[in-house]
Amino acid sequence: MALKLDPGQRLVLATHNAGKVRELAQILENRFEVVSAGELGLPEPEETETTFAGNALLKARAAAEAGGLVALADDSGLSAAALDGAPGIFSARWAGPGKDFALAMRHVEERIAEAGRRLEDACWFTCALAVAWPDGPAVVVEGRVDGRLTFPPRGDRGFGYDPIFTPDGGALTFGEMEPAAKDAMSHRARAFAKLKAALF
Amino acid sequence: MALKLDPGQRLVLATHNAGKVRELAQILENRFEVVSAGELGLPEPEETETTFAGNALLKARAAAEAGGLVALADDSGLSAAALDGAPGIFSARWAGPGKDFALAMRHVEERIAEAGRRLEDACWFTCALAVAWPDGPAVVVEGRVDGRLTFPPRGDRGFGYDPIFTPDGGALTFGEMEPAAKDAMSHRARAFAKLKAALF
Repeated sequence: MALKLDPGQRLVLATHNAGKVRELAQILENRFEVVSAGELGLPEPEETETTFAGNALLKARAAAEAGGLVALADDSGLSAAALDGAPGIFSARWAGPGKDFALAMRHVEERIAEAGRRLEDACWFTCALAVAWPDGPAVVVEGRVDGRLTFPPRGDRGFGYDPIFTPDGGALTFGEMEPAAKDAMSHRARAFAKLKAALF
Repeated sequence: MALKLDPGQRLVLATHNAGKVRELAQILENRFEVVSAGELGLPEPEETETTFAGNALLKARAAAEAGGLVALADDSGLSAAALDGAPGIFSARWAGPGKDFALAMRHVEERIAEAGRRLEDACWFTCALAVAWPDGPAVVVEGRVDGRLTFPPRGDRGFGYDPIFTPDGGALTFGEMEPAAKDAMSHRARAFAKLKAALF
């Protein structure tokens, strides 16, 4: 088999989050016929790995095996240098079951203060993407964008930790930037660029 | 970039084990110019993931980034159904720092007996292989062979847990089989066949 994704190919998105399905489908430019793991009623695996790449791989492989289709998974988050990379793979979990990212951002601010570090300390967003074939190989890529923490949070665009992230060389947070400007440099865009170069 | 490995390409084997380097180099049929992570003085990452695939990926990516070369890593082990997949990713660690697999096999036997299960219970070998490009994608494959535990251990060929593994449909343990016969069906051979189909 060749490691290629063909236009129009059926692809299961290994997520149960409807917002993420819409976002991934949009990034994929309607190139594929996408269906979500949630729509197929596939089980949601526990994210037991310690890295973004490991968790993306685990989710893609689980969906490919359970669904019998090529599967795409992502795993992403914010890492603060002062917190040894936290929240990292726990980024979503810091927002709690209610997905309260205002709470998660306050938590980052408190932990940075406790560590005695500047609130504008270095941080980065990471996005890992994995594509897995049923009983076959998997391809994993990772994109990263470096920046600095920004408190108080600014902007109501984007989602998650976007309001406390200002990319290096910029003045606006991801929460303030035009979607097109953010999409030109984001960790997710960089990961998708690598995926496209490898598989499209 | 195309996800292909070219003949003669330089490849770093992400292992510090000289025996494994020899074995991998042999399987690769001298197709590539191989050098080991040990020879290059690369750091040995901690194997923190919970799956064979995750640990192979982690090791390949660490070697690719540290060495600036395409890297190949493997992670493999024996899983017993009665022990919920143990020793699994801990297969090498059960042998202790002295790599005493006679001890590790006794440990499996004791745990099976404690679980009140038959000593001939189902088990399987898994081999995950990962190839990572520096700052680029990674490809992960997995091969598996099913069999049954065999006590007392038999045969002095192979290595590791081979003397207590009899493949389904066979009468000899991996420790008793001719190398060519074992290589025709082993988890490692199956993983390499998938890797070759994808990348060679």
